[in-house]
Amino acid sequence: MRVKAQGVVIVSRQNERVKAVRALQERKARQSTGCFLAEGIGLVGMAVQTGAAIDLVVVCEELCQSEFGLKVLGELEQREAPRIDVSVDVFGSITDDRSHGLLGVVRQHEITLKDIRAEGVWIALDAIQYPPNLGTILRTCDAIGARGVILMDASTDPFAPATVKASRGAIFTQQVVRCRLEEFARWKPASGFRVVGTSLEAKIAYTQGNYTSPVVLMMGSERYGLQEGHLAVCDELVKIPMLGRCDSLNVAVAASLVLYETIRAR
Amino acid sequence: MRVKAQGVVIVSRQNERVKAVRALQERKARQSTGCFLAEGIGLVGMAVQTGAAIDLVVVCEELCQSEFGLKVLGELEQREAPRIDVSVDVFGSITDDRSHGLLGVVRQHEITLKDIRAEGVWIALDAIQYPPNLGTILRTCDAIGARGVILMDASTDPFAPATVKASRGAIFTQQVVRCRLEEFARWKPASGFRVVGTSLEAKIAYTQGNYTSPVVLMMGSERYGLQEGHLAVCDELVKIPMLGRCDSLNVAVAASLVLYETIRAR
Repeated sequence: MRVKAQGVVIVSRQNERVKAVRALQERKARQSTGCFLAEGIGLVGMAVQTGAAIDLVVVCEELCQSEFGLKVLGELEQREAPRIDVSVDVFGSITDDRSHGLLGVVRQHEITLKDIRAEGVWIALDAIQYPPNLGTILRTCDAIGARGVILMDASTDPFAPATVKASRGAIFTQQVVRCRLEEFARWKPASGFRVVGTSLEAKIAYTQGNYTSPVVLMMGSERYGLQEGHLAVCDELVKIPMLGRCDSLNVAVAASLVLYETIRAR
Repeated sequence: MRVKAQGVVIVSRQNERVKAVRALQERKARQSTGCFLAEGIGLVGMAVQTGAAIDLVVVCEELCQSEFGLKVLGELEQREAPRIDVSVDVFGSITDDRSHGLLGVVRQHEITLKDIRAEGVWIALDAIQYPPNLGTILRTCDAIGARGVILMDASTDPFAPATVKASRGAIFTQQVVRCRLEEFARWKPASGFRVVGTSLEAKIAYTQGNYTSPVVLMMGSERYGLQEGHLAVCDELVKIPMLGRCDSLNVAVAASLVLYETIRAR
């Protein structure tokens, strides 16, 4: 370590705190700590704006010289977010995103089904696998003013770096619930929500659905669509027309089409 | 090489034909040959169905034993598509997608602006960079029965493996034009097409646009949106409402929302 005017700059990749931050790239450490990474100025800025619980800020001052970077740093200081300073080398060992030399360790804001208030638009996704697709869906959820996502069964980790990046910060504006389909089915009847599922078997087009909130939109996996158990909890099924030769849409595209329909209904 | 009942099986990764096929993973070889790769049974099957010009089929019989695989192989034989057989090791040196042991070398079907007939729906994309986004847009184009994509300026290669895979075969149902904005601007007035651009500056919502065909939808880059030169060729501008904190949608989502609006207009 060498001492700077601002304090101590960690120069060892093997420093215990650095190792703990770097470990959050992996699901195991995210599970055991309940934290995740906000990599880069855009995500840290969104974490600050939305009042996310920031456990630690990792700063590389050599990389953090832009006006926006210094502004965000100032706001973090005001909020008295704990901070460590690291060298360019150490920073690069933690993250590929060196933009503005800023990285946040943020607490996961997961809630449970019973915490959900009966209002607004939610989307429930079954077994979504590909992190960029989940991130893109979160981004569309933010754009239409949705409340959050319900991830059922074997879904990818919403707090994985690739998901968080693709969400462009929407992870901070959306509530997140992880549950099993059986839990969802038990919760739904008294929840106050209608559930509208998307299925190629539906008789009406997605443009004809009733999206009066509170509403949960339900999407099946890209591979299998909605299964029997999902269909049983849906109040209405809608389909997205397909006029071509491919047999399905990208799941983030399909979700976004239905999410945007809910704006028409408002 | 070792001899099988069906003929010769290439077992050397350094075989000249194998090297030529493998090189198509890179843009340079795709440019010099005018060919691209259809990796896996799904893409080869779509190439066959759509009557794409298949220059060569690479088969690994050990991996190609499913009913669908054998059916596609039969169709390729009827079409007398040139074929080489390779070992599992050689096949794996060409492609990561070992599904069904089938791979096609297909001729790029690019056309020019003057080849475009004045009908249907097209989408023009400015400087689209991320191959999975372009592939996803092609997939939505297929789903709504569009005619093709016009890629302007520094766009990613529509025949890159990542684009072709994400298109799920839609690359074979969509026409492809690459041009510069200036060429587009010169072509447009006598083309018979209306051009509807998507811009946050637009005064009307995308749900109010006039998508009567022949129509070209125009999308700017995710980073900069439509620039002055693009706006000058648009007959109408529409915007997609954004109610959240993020400042943009994923470009494939934005494109898909507008593409699906054209179905409503039909």
